[in-house]
Amino acid sequence: MEKKKFALAGIGRIGKIHLENLLIMDEVEVVAVMDPYSEGREFAIQKGIENVFSSYEQMIKDSSIDAVVISSPTDTHADYVEIAAHAGKAVFCEKPLDLNLRRVLDVLKLVSSKGIKLMLGFNRRFDKEFLKVKRLVGEGAIGKHHLVKITSRDPQAPPISYVVKSGGLFLDMSIHDFDMARFIVDKEIVEVYAKGAALINPEFSRVGDIDSAVITLTYEDGTMAIIDNSREAAYGYDQRVEVFGSKGMVKAENNLHNTHQLFNSKGSHRSLPLYFFLERYADAYKIEIRDFVHALINKTDLPVDGNDGLQSLIIGLAAIKSIKENRPVKVSEIYQN
Amino acid sequence: MEKKKFALAGIGRIGKIHLENLLIMDEVEVVAVMDPYSEGREFAIQKGIENVFSSYEQMIKDSSIDAVVISSPTDTHADYVEIAAHAGKAVFCEKPLDLNLRRVLDVLKLVSSKGIKLMLGFNRRFDKEFLKVKRLVGEGAIGKHHLVKITSRDPQAPPISYVVKSGGLFLDMSIHDFDMARFIVDKEIVEVYAKGAALINPEFSRVGDIDSAVITLTYEDGTMAIIDNSREAAYGYDQRVEVFGSKGMVKAENNLHNTHQLFNSKGSHRSLPLYFFLERYADAYKIEIRDFVHALINKTDLPVDGNDGLQSLIIGLAAIKSIKENRPVKVSEIYQN
Amino acid sequence: MEKKKFALAGIGRIGKIHLENLLIMDEVEVVAVMDPYSEGREFAIQKGIENVFSSYEQMIKDSSIDAVVISSPTDTHADYVEIAAHAGKAVFCEKPLDLNLRRVLDVLKLVSSKGIKLMLGFNRRFDKEFLKVKRLVGEGAIGKHHLVKITSRDPQAPPISYVVKSGGLFLDMSIHDFDMARFIVDKEIVEVYAKGAALINPEFSRVGDIDSAVITLTYEDGTMAIIDNSREAAYGYDQRVEVFGSKGMVKAENNLHNTHQLFNSKGSHRSLPLYFFLERYADAYKIEIRDFVHALINKTDLPVDGNDGLQSLIIGLAAIKSIKENRPVKVSEIYQN
Amino acid sequence: MEKKKFALAGIGRIGKIHLENLLIMDEVEVVAVMDPYSEGREFAIQKGIENVFSSYEQMIKDSSIDAVVISSPTDTHADYVEIAAHAGKAVFCEKPLDLNLRRVLDVLKLVSSKGIKLMLGFNRRFDKEFLKVKRLVGEGAIGKHHLVKITSRDPQAPPISYVVKSGGLFLDMSIHDFDMARFIVDKEIVEVYAKGAALINPEFSRVGDIDSAVITLTYEDGTMAIIDNSREAAYGYDQRVEVFGSKGMVKAENNLHNTHQLFNSKGSHRSLPLYFFLERYADAYKIEIRDFVHALINKTDLPVDGNDGLQSLIIGLAAIKSIKENRPVKVSEIYQN
Repeated sequence: MEKKKFALAGIGRIGKIHLENLLIMDEVEVVAVMDPYSEGREFAIQKGIENVFSSYEQMIKDSSIDAVVISSPTDTHADYVEIAAHAGKAVFCEKPLDLNLRRVLDVLKLVSSKGIKLMLGFNRRFDKEFLKVKRLVGEGAIGKHHLVKITSRDPQAPPISYVVKSGGLFLDMSIHDFDMARFIVDKEIVEVYAKGAALINPEFSRVGDIDSAVITLTYEDGTMAIIDNSREAAYGYDQRVEVFGSKGMVKAENNLHNTHQLFNSKGSHRSLPLYFFLERYADAYKIEIRDFVHALINKTDLPVDGNDGLQSLIIGLAAIKSIKENRPVKVSEIYQN
Repeated sequence: MEKKKFALAGIGRIGKIHLENLLIMDEVEVVAVMDPYSEGREFAIQKGIENVFSSYEQMIKDSSIDAVVISSPTDTHADYVEIAAHAGKAVFCEKPLDLNLRRVLDVLKLVSSKGIKLMLGFNRRFDKEFLKVKRLVGEGAIGKHHLVKITSRDPQAPPISYVVKSGGLFLDMSIHDFDMARFIVDKEIVEVYAKGAALINPEFSRVGDIDSAVITLTYEDGTMAIIDNSREAAYGYDQRVEVFGSKGMVKAENNLHNTHQLFNSKGSHRSLPLYFFLERYADAYKIEIRDFVHALINKTDLPVDGNDGLQSLIIGLAAIKSIKENRPVKVSEIYQN
Repeated sequence: MEKKKFALAGIGRIGKIHLENLLIMDEVEVVAVMDPYSEGREFAIQKGIENVFSSYEQMIKDSSIDAVVISSPTDTHADYVEIAAHAGKAVFCEKPLDLNLRRVLDVLKLVSSKGIKLMLGFNRRFDKEFLKVKRLVGEGAIGKHHLVKITSRDPQAPPISYVVKSGGLFLDMSIHDFDMARFIVDKEIVEVYAKGAALINPEFSRVGDIDSAVITLTYEDGTMAIIDNSREAAYGYDQRVEVFGSKGMVKAENNLHNTHQLFNSKGSHRSLPLYFFLERYADAYKIEIRDFVHALINKTDLPVDGNDGLQSLIIGLAAIKSIKENRPVKVSEIYQN
Repeated sequence: MEKKKFALAGIGRIGKIHLENLLIMDEVEVVAVMDPYSEGREFAIQKGIENVFSSYEQMIKDSSIDAVVISSPTDTHADYVEIAAHAGKAVFCEKPLDLNLRRVLDVLKLVSSKGIKLMLGFNRRFDKEFLKVKRLVGEGAIGKHHLVKITSRDPQAPPISYVVKSGGLFLDMSIHDFDMARFIVDKEIVEVYAKGAALINPEFSRVGDIDSAVITLTYEDGTMAIIDNSREAAYGYDQRVEVFGSKGMVKAENNLHNTHQLFNSKGSHRSLPLYFFLERYADAYKIEIRDFVHALINKTDLPVDGNDGLQSLIIGLAAIKSIKENRPVKVSEIYQN
């Protein structure tokens, strides 16, 4: 078997995970890694990577590279994808492609014209809990879908310094839930109504953002989804999905540290959920990159593509407009698909 | 101990429950019952009630009556309360007082001027599950409240013949949830956004109603509630509440038929929820009427009063306006409290 | 409908419950009550009972009495049943009939020769949780039965003054579990091995008793049951049953105060079980006495009879012998059924 | 860092897992592998192992080897450990060392005299569920320990051809539970009473074995443990532990495939447990071998040693004697520790 030759750009928290997950795959050879900081480069060297760069452009020149994994900061994504597209490399890029709709459309146009494969890193699609729900919905276990409910709360609010560059709650955090809303029932969204506030920390409000939100989505067939988001849940990372339909309902619950139940004179006690996305989605990250590799090898469709990134961005922009104008916003007001 | 003398108007499903619950109270003597149908009157006679009427006006003339329980059809509530008010009787009335805001305001004005006690039958306030949640929220167990989530789904859609006279989903069904949203965190609602559709049965749409809805409520302090309603859940009566706050979250789950878990080669299986409101809220009905009686005896405040009925109606009317105009509606657009 | 005329002997904790449960039945008239203490008699008077006695013999003379409920202290049971048998009354008697096997056999012989109906108060047979398990087992939901597991722990150890008169852990507490072991799979026990210790309080040991035990029962067909008992569980009344078989397993869990789940930075928290037998089996007591009444009216078999009391006693005596001699004891060593 | 040089003997199901888990450790170099069958050797070659043997004696001659992992058939364990001991290698050996007590004592004597490190593969000690229970017990969360309950059921009975060579239920299967009983509360067992039968398949009985058992263990301080075993649970691998004490109770439940709950008109449905030990204990195997490596590197005590293997064997032999003679057997009857 000829191995697929991979390069990685950006060896931060997620980049490290992708690197480790690629290194255990027999089908993959990691031939190069790029990070502007020495900490990231040293991590790669310790993992046995020989070609380590501080410049993306330098790295991508290596013609033997089949595919590049982009887990650098968001504002580099579009540039790096474009460079890879011009070089004819397959790309796995962390979401979002960019926070600017125009820019995303341009990148996708280039990707399309160059005929390269582009997968977006919506890791939750590879979580076994949500996959089980999607499968049951797809098999008709709950009949015709009526309502999707998504709860998505982070264990700790990020620092305001991060918030101001994040694109805001809807593009930084809810965007995963917008993708989940589309994915779990395989339907497109046509309208968004968002309501939110800075309830955790008034600083969010000062920088023009919110930390808590409730979003009503309407699907093309008139069915609905509701998402509730919070930047900080005292009890940890809360990632639940419920789908209700004509014949029943299916839910996915949080993954706890362990199953123990302690009973004492106060009541019974159970564990907290796994701390945050790195813990909760550890397996999902493995499967995500494996599925990308396998799709390249088998020349099959990618499980998440550029359009998925685009649609989530559009919904996010509609949510921003909705909260500004306090009214439901049609997705078509943002972009005519 | 002198017993409080009670009369009941309307011996249908709920009326029978109230009658039985009053009969087991040592502090109460049921002196009269009224029902236009012989079936209801015969039920009362079998229960040992001696004075049985087919006319409300006739019954209310009995000057020994201290209090009247009104569980007759909705369109008689306002009239019956007014007659009782003129006669100086305390009143326990099933919700809603009336579907017309003007009429409700007039009744409440009369009630106030006559100085009689009026309690509305929001039975869910007396359910031990929701009371536990409210108590924990009140004690600060979850810190500052951010979000209330209410799921309320009936086990079976009513016939269309009932639907057309019901006042519609928001005034017939969601009104309980509007009351719960106010009750559970003890805050007033200022804005309503409702989205809905006829997903179960297109006949709902034909008669100008919906069978499925998602409602976003905004409290006076900017915190939020989301309610999801369905006229028909295949798995039965779904009555859940979740309150999320700065220090945690508390949930009340459905009451199941029993605790059994059956494990076989297909997985594990548990019971359905208790069938419908008569089963789920059997104890709540007992406590509700007991608390009414005790408030009369002890001359304390009623646990639910006319204003609670008014506020829920206003929210319901705002929801109706919201869905018609597809926009968030301020409660103050309906009525200036 | 002619009402069955009932008398009650012993108005302690359980007697009060039986009295109240009989008073709400339309098919029953409580014509007399007996209690040697004025507190019990006054309770009955307040409940409207006119004929109140301090002597059982006096009470039983009333020839109009159809049935007597015996909830007086254990050492009176045998005498009272015999007197009732001679008077031709049907009897509902709290367990145990007597702690002495010879005495029980004599009473049962008399009951049989007089042809009266005798039901023993094994209240747990009427608990909806265990009934659901029994029903599923009976329907073959778990295939052929292999193992029964019963956990039975009290919330608080009784005072030593009670313990010394109780007959010991096996006859006072485990006897309910011996009955459950027979009832839940409808099989007879042939061998008992008991192991126990005074782990909660060494005083138990001083008075020749134990407070903690593990009992292995072998059924006639070689299948097994295990019971674990404790006089004191810090988290409350623990009443669980599990039945394992060739096609699966079914469990009944504890009944909690409510369904709430509180999530905070420490984990998630749930309620304690209902406090003790009066709370947990409140409904079971109602159904038990109702089924007794209905069996009398319909002249059908009693759901628990004298033999059930006898069998549990025999198993209990075998357990006592087993722990004394530290060896498995055949039930037939105690009594040849 | 100098890497520890490892050799492996036996590349069956468990051997493969150990090999893969060693290969991902930076602290380890796997220098040799031995398997009498070509299938096992080829697996090792594919994993990049260069020195592959069909003779254990040949392999062990390599003086660079620091430690050997023995996952060959049970009847080779004692020989292989002895050879390794003579060669001065540290040993990780799958349980049991041998089914013959004399043989085990001899091996342990040699191990001791040669001063090599020997760890036994009681994988369940490294399962996060049981570790959490042990930690809570150790911290006093349930007060003084009174009772341990272990349920251990396999998803499918092995073929009779396996059974006859397995040493029987107690030495093949229950031995894990005997170790758990000691481990979870850190106490020694002094007495065993076992009861069992062939309920799943009469063939077990024909070959002198049982497929279902209930075992009562008594600890040195008079507290107790109960174990229930079955060779086949229709719903899968059932691995639960419960510890009850003076201040509460703690339980570990099964690990399910996922958290989903499906609600339909029949009730609610959840997943099966993870299929069998390879799935349930996948992480435990990783941690077990990692802890062995770290103990070697850090020269600390091994988490499981030869004496742990000895004690479990003694309890198993006592269980065999108990069931044969149908009486409780003192551990000291088997061996004076």
